[in-house]
Amino acid sequence: MTATTLSDTTGAVRFDIERDRRIGLPEAVFCEGKPFSVLLALLERFADDNEKPILFTRLSPETMAKVPRELAERYDYDALSRTAWHRTLEKRTGRAAVVSAGSADLFVTREAARTLHYLGYEPVLFEDCGVAGLWRIQAAIEDINRCDVVIVAAGLDAALASVLGGLTSKPLFAVPTSVGYGIAEHGMTALRSMLASCAPGVCVLNIDNGYGAACAAARVLALLEAA
Amino acid sequence: MTATTLSDTTGAVRFDIERDRRIGLPEAVFCEGKPFSVLLALLERFADDNEKPILFTRLSPETMAKVPRELAERYDYDALSRTAWHRTLEKRTGRAAVVSAGSADLFVTREAARTLHYLGYEPVLFEDCGVAGLWRIQAAIEDINRCDVVIVAAGLDAALASVLGGLTSKPLFAVPTSVGYGIAEHGMTALRSMLASCAPGVCVLNIDNGYGAACAAARVLALLEAA
Amino acid sequence: MTATTLSDTTGAVRFDIERDRRIGLPEAVFCEGKPFSVLLALLERFADDNEKPILFTRLSPETMAKVPRELAERYDYDALSRTAWHRTLEKRTGRAAVVSAGSADLFVTREAARTLHYLGYEPVLFEDCGVAGLWRIQAAIEDINRCDVVIVAAGLDAALASVLGGLTSKPLFAVPTSVGYGIAEHGMTALRSMLASCAPGVCVLNIDNGYGAACAAARVLALLEAA
Amino acid sequence: MTATTLSDTTGAVRFDIERDRRIGLPEAVFCEGKPFSVLLALLERFADDNEKPILFTRLSPETMAKVPRELAERYDYDALSRTAWHRTLEKRTGRAAVVSAGSADLFVTREAARTLHYLGYEPVLFEDCGVAGLWRIQAAIEDINRCDVVIVAAGLDAALASVLGGLTSKPLFAVPTSVGYGIAEHGMTALRSMLASCAPGVCVLNIDNGYGAACAAARVLALLEAA
Amino acid sequence: MTATTLSDTTGAVRFDIERDRRIGLPEAVFCEGKPFSVLLALLERFADDNEKPILFTRLSPETMAKVPRELAERYDYDALSRTAWHRTLEKRTGRAAVVSAGSADLFVTREAARTLHYLGYEPVLFEDCGVAGLWRIQAAIEDINRCDVVIVAAGLDAALASVLGGLTSKPLFAVPTSVGYGIAEHGMTALRSMLASCAPGVCVLNIDNGYGAACAAARVLALLEAA
Amino acid sequence: MTATTLSDTTGAVRFDIERDRRIGLPEAVFCEGKPFSVLLALLERFADDNEKPILFTRLSPETMAKVPRELAERYDYDALSRTAWHRTLEKRTGRAAVVSAGSADLFVTREAARTLHYLGYEPVLFEDCGVAGLWRIQAAIEDINRCDVVIVAAGLDAALASVLGGLTSKPLFAVPTSVGYGIAEHGMTALRSMLASCAPGVCVLNIDNGYGAACAAARVLALLEAA
Amino acid sequence: MTATTLSDTTGAVRFDIERDRRIGLPEAVFCEGKPFSVLLALLERFADDNEKPILFTRLSPETMAKVPRELAERYDYDALSRTAWHRTLEKRTGRAAVVSAGSADLFVTREAARTLHYLGYEPVLFEDCGVAGLWRIQAAIEDINRCDVVIVAAGLDAALASVLGGLTSKPLFAVPTSVGYGIAEHGMTALRSMLASCAPGVCVLNIDNGYGAACAAARVLALLEAA
Amino acid sequence: MTATTLSDTTGAVRFDIERDRRIGLPEAVFCEGKPFSVLLALLERFADDNEKPILFTRLSPETMAKVPRELAERYDYDALSRTAWHRTLEKRTGRAAVVSAGSADLFVTREAARTLHYLGYEPVLFEDCGVAGLWRIQAAIEDINRCDVVIVAAGLDAALASVLGGLTSKPLFAVPTSVGYGIAEHGMTALRSMLASCAPGVCVLNIDNGYGAACAAARVLALLEAA
Repeated sequence: MTATTLSDTTGAVRFDIERDRRIGLPEAVFCEGKPFSVLLALLERFADDNEKPILFTRLSPETMAKVPRELAERYDYDALSRTAWHRTLEKRTGRAAVVSAGSADLFVTREAARTLHYLGYEPVLFEDCGVAGLWRIQAAIEDINRCDVVIVAAGLDAALASVLGGLTSKPLFAVPTSVGYGIAEHGMTALRSMLASCAPGVCVLNIDNGYGAACAAARVLALLEAA
Repeated sequence: MTATTLSDTTGAVRFDIERDRRIGLPEAVFCEGKPFSVLLALLERFADDNEKPILFTRLSPETMAKVPRELAERYDYDALSRTAWHRTLEKRTGRAAVVSAGSADLFVTREAARTLHYLGYEPVLFEDCGVAGLWRIQAAIEDINRCDVVIVAAGLDAALASVLGGLTSKPLFAVPTSVGYGIAEHGMTALRSMLASCAPGVCVLNIDNGYGAACAAARVLALLEAA
Repeated sequence: MTATTLSDTTGAVRFDIERDRRIGLPEAVFCEGKPFSVLLALLERFADDNEKPILFTRLSPETMAKVPRELAERYDYDALSRTAWHRTLEKRTGRAAVVSAGSADLFVTREAARTLHYLGYEPVLFEDCGVAGLWRIQAAIEDINRCDVVIVAAGLDAALASVLGGLTSKPLFAVPTSVGYGIAEHGMTALRSMLASCAPGVCVLNIDNGYGAACAAARVLALLEAA
Repeated sequence: MTATTLSDTTGAVRFDIERDRRIGLPEAVFCEGKPFSVLLALLERFADDNEKPILFTRLSPETMAKVPRELAERYDYDALSRTAWHRTLEKRTGRAAVVSAGSADLFVTREAARTLHYLGYEPVLFEDCGVAGLWRIQAAIEDINRCDVVIVAAGLDAALASVLGGLTSKPLFAVPTSVGYGIAEHGMTALRSMLASCAPGVCVLNIDNGYGAACAAARVLALLEAA
Repeated sequence: MTATTLSDTTGAVRFDIERDRRIGLPEAVFCEGKPFSVLLALLERFADDNEKPILFTRLSPETMAKVPRELAERYDYDALSRTAWHRTLEKRTGRAAVVSAGSADLFVTREAARTLHYLGYEPVLFEDCGVAGLWRIQAAIEDINRCDVVIVAAGLDAALASVLGGLTSKPLFAVPTSVGYGIAEHGMTALRSMLASCAPGVCVLNIDNGYGAACAAARVLALLEAA
Repeated sequence: MTATTLSDTTGAVRFDIERDRRIGLPEAVFCEGKPFSVLLALLERFADDNEKPILFTRLSPETMAKVPRELAERYDYDALSRTAWHRTLEKRTGRAAVVSAGSADLFVTREAARTLHYLGYEPVLFEDCGVAGLWRIQAAIEDINRCDVVIVAAGLDAALASVLGGLTSKPLFAVPTSVGYGIAEHGMTALRSMLASCAPGVCVLNIDNGYGAACAAARVLALLEAA
Repeated sequence: MTATTLSDTTGAVRFDIERDRRIGLPEAVFCEGKPFSVLLALLERFADDNEKPILFTRLSPETMAKVPRELAERYDYDALSRTAWHRTLEKRTGRAAVVSAGSADLFVTREAARTLHYLGYEPVLFEDCGVAGLWRIQAAIEDINRCDVVIVAAGLDAALASVLGGLTSKPLFAVPTSVGYGIAEHGMTALRSMLASCAPGVCVLNIDNGYGAACAAARVLALLEAA
Repeated sequence: MTATTLSDTTGAVRFDIERDRRIGLPEAVFCEGKPFSVLLALLERFADDNEKPILFTRLSPETMAKVPRELAERYDYDALSRTAWHRTLEKRTGRAAVVSAGSADLFVTREAARTLHYLGYEPVLFEDCGVAGLWRIQAAIEDINRCDVVIVAAGLDAALASVLGGLTSKPLFAVPTSVGYGIAEHGMTALRSMLASCAPGVCVLNIDNGYGAACAAARVLALLEAA
């Protein structure tokens, strides 16, 4: 392996091409914080039909606006979820419910749903089911339980995760969102609340990490498909 | 209940229409973080005289500026408190004192006061009563005690909450504000200070949550009205 | 007012005798951290039938065990809630529901209930209603709504507070408890979760502060009684 | 539902008997913080062969030592994991790897393993595989990948979770442990590290929550068994 | 200067004998955490009438109980403040008010007062002046203002510091105390509250640092005496 | 006292006109967070030669740029320290050393120095004396010790406060600054470090609170002048 | 030493000219937070060939854009690492490996590498070696071990530091980076993780402190060169 | 590799026997938190002269007291540093200065010194050099600079690390200690302060981690010896 030189930045990326084979999930490009020159080189590389499909996450509209139009148009880009792909993976069997507490959580549920879609699975969205109006989750629970796995996104007190944990036997992946203000502290309270859930077997991802929840769900769905 | 599709975002909102009947307080729209397309759909829906009255909170001037003028003008919007309504609820009996430590707390006291006004109650404002000049709260206390409930908003050390807690027998709802810098840490010190108050029965809302304090006060005022 | 001398510690206490008249709640003795000599002097003073009734809180069994038996027996002491009184205040009208998530919260709900009882009000206990089994709170809600005010105690994720906040119109005082481990962080997660509640008008007391919740409830009940 | 009275504490428990039917996992008794009188009543009740099997967690040796010997002997109690049962559930198919970074994590891995055993699944333990000696996890990975799901417990920097996340395609449940000192902060650093894992789809439980990890794994195993 | 050897621990202490000359305050021995062998050597050295006077702080009753009786008796030891001296410094002019919020703060106010006494100044104690009963500080303020400097100790919300800061023109040194529970967080809330005080020129010491407050006050009193 | 109405914001200010008489320091206007309409009203009021002198702090260049030019020119405004006054108080005797660790601390030292100047005292500045080059503080110490009181401002590890605390007998007021990044955490590390100083009698103000340090110094200088 | 006057800000800088002689590392200019007038004066002074070489760190592109073009062009400025110099120090012997977890860490590795280059040493870069694909660090380790010292930069969980610590015997300096979101908390999790590393002798610098890591490495390289 | 069974705990340890060859430092046994049965098995194994030498760290006197006397006596155990060995490694060349701020830091400096001694290097101790009396570190600095590397241990504000960083060119490893109270927060303030040090190239270990500092120093000394 050759070391990088001080004057070269775009050459610094080493793709984990074999990740797919090893863990069943291909590498994705987390765009936040990467120098624009590096991002551009990656977008150019993976717009090629001969390359493997790749998912770009946390690709902000501001960054996308700086990408040459012709290149940008080769991607299916969604500004709300900040995700992009040139091609998706092949369709597989497996359905994941994606449940949210409120419409301010959309940017996270859509990241999860689009990642699932990109990986070949079917996301089923149940949004705005916060527990301040319990009937909402109760009206949805039967449909949710028809899916194989469940992702739940909620901010503030994230009480929905515990309530849902007591209503479903399915694997349940909880994503705290940065929705709220003050003590919500950019999702820290929702994170803590989900980790301390009184319902057994609720497991938790990083704040706003819809992508991670989709990957965790995909680990289960792949196992199930193989069974 | 039908699940939402990946391409539809404005359809994701499920209004808790019956909240009013259940808990005596109608649902409100917390605007921060909601996609603009969702907000716009809600503003359009509730500008209709046939809809129930609704309160929009945390509706920033920047967002309001993007709303089509004709629609915006159908709302009573206040930039300082970031609240808007098309219609208020019917007048009810009940007066709430809204006390603040300094004029930098105005954005919170006005959110509380406007929420009370929207709910049909009468807010009475006592501003700039910080304890560094004790005479200010002492001059106001008699008038404050003529109200049914008391809301107190303060930032920094929030000492006013404790002092007031020792001067009134009324239910007292304390709102820490994000006023201050450094160790004030966006209201976290005021929050902690109010929660640790040496005066008995002071209860606390989230930082800058004037809306919540008004709702807590309204729960008492409705009970009182029913008595 | 005379200053205290270096060699005198028991003389350091200045009772706020008039607190009752001012805020409708008599002063109580918070025992934690007080030198034993001071506590003993107070226990002796208030075992006298000519003194006003007084409530001792956070009086640990270890401390009580060091109090001379004859004196200790003049008090109604409860080890679980760590409260003691020689006499209670006169009976008043007003009922407060005290709801808990689990039986580990008992030490807090009993502090709240005994404080209410001491103040002359009637506590009604609804324990072990955690939302991991939603039917529990649903089975109790009708009875809860027959009370005038509601106190809810919960640790861990404290999701019960939000669910209850969406099911009752009554003033709701939430007490986070130090139940749990790890991220529950001695009640800090429950506290944050309650403050960030998605249900409107839930207000919050310090961790394990059953006494404070009872006082907040009493402020409302006294107002109601006067109406 | 009848409310509890002030003088009755053991009657405060409402068992969620139907939890099993609802979420596939029976209720367990979290012993920490419960008054001893409540615990004793529960231990007596569930030592009965006619009762459903039940799992007691966080039952400390100090508490167990206070239980009457005859009663205690009706339980299979393990002091390291602090778990006890009178009877286990029926055997089911499904194997879970339980991997740890060091032997100080044993108290957590054993809680997870015993919970799995109680639920009817087979735990396979791989202990002391910390990444400071990479060969350890590399020697174990093939065997680990023969299991259906993976639980990983680690304290300090918890780097093992990320390394393992890059070596297995199986659902991976990470449990931070309170092992370490100083900045390890009772597991808080391990928790944060696991949540921020650079490997996709690692999901996280509360600190030392071996029980929760077993439940999360069981949700997957039950799904798999049903497939 | 000779380096210490691995086998010698009592030789490791280098006294800052000249501190007195440099900053007007002699070195003191902070006992907490020092190996007992080191402490014993120091107690023996400074029980000698030919040595300079020295102050021992944070000398716990448990440690003192292990000191040989004859040696211990050569010291004026106070268990509440955990301070000891063999001899005090010479009397000087200057009076410091030491004000506290409650009797649980006594262990701090007494440390401050005894340190002042040891340094030769006169402490004047005003205890139990918490603002939940404002009349207490108002009754004392005239006497407080007759002193040259003011030390204020308070836990919980520490509101007394701000109120006092608005009532006196004297230099004001605020000591947060670890009194309280939950969000009081061992004095952290009082510390933050005092630092964020709305009264100008309130300056703050570490939690429970009565010794430091006395030193800060002594810096002013020495300056004043020299004027 | 009349309460404020919902539609009036500029009327909400209650000046503590008598503060000067009570605590020797006139009220100042903390501008951050105040609505612009309130600030403008205050700037207009105090540009009048018949009004008492007043100090505006935290008045940002952005805000000042919005003030009508003619009004702005009636003020002595300094953008670095963000302070403004129309007139200063009368000259008094007393000199305060203002010492800083680096030139990035200038915005704080200048706020302290300008406040002292406004109050009538003489500030003497010693800047860029950080301990990584010990000779700097050693070269300045003799001149510093010729002043009556010392203010020290430092960010990062704030080691200068402790070193200075060991080199001067004068009252020492330490101001942590928000200089630094990462673990410096906007001054939180400097704040903690100063509070935990190993030098006796160092007392501490809020982060970046040069104004507060000047007030604390002024309390001492006024006492000294009166002596 | 003369004190600075209130009206002079550029004169406030005292260069630690002799630092080089004392600790083997010349003073550098940390630009963040310094007033622009001070920065400009420094850039002008050190663009002179007769001055000692100097390194500017944290010099943002925004600031550099405000520097007069002619002056700016006298500097070798790199926007990614935010470093600038007019001249470097003389070449010395010694090679440092600079390893990173991902390409988002480039801004830190480049600061470290450019600082080493400026100090006269040879940096060798190994980028994008995160442990989610273990083969990457394993492919590089032999080359890394040919260097004298190792710097490792990583964000998120920073697991690379521990893995590397178990694969090299060289001095290892770990720099947490602010890469990531949510619980990554601007590098705080990476920092904690590195400090709690299970590999022995990993030592840690402040978040994003590539400059500091280069200095720590240079201390070793200088020692080695002298051997 | 065989997996461990549920009933076997002592078999769970996998020694990293080759660590020495890989990173130049043999594995050590961190005793805190390990089940006693595991510890005992390890102590028995390594008391054998045919085994490699091993270091036990954090072996508390309470634990050691439970070890059978005959076995315990085969170890060189030091209660202050909580370290034990049966045999040390061979002597090597290289001297490390171990500097502390106060005698309360002894438990850390002795852990560092004993680890160095065990590894074959010579520790030179300079204790009680806190900067409140600057002459102490100035008297020692010449001797310190005669060593090859420097370890500095300090609690509270840890200012000694920065001062020392400005006085030596040697590699400098800083260990925060848990000495202090209140805001010192068990070493967290010292840790932060050292990480934010204004002196370049100071690198930091975990709180109280004398063992780690010795390992970091040994990495340099081994490199130097090989040069």
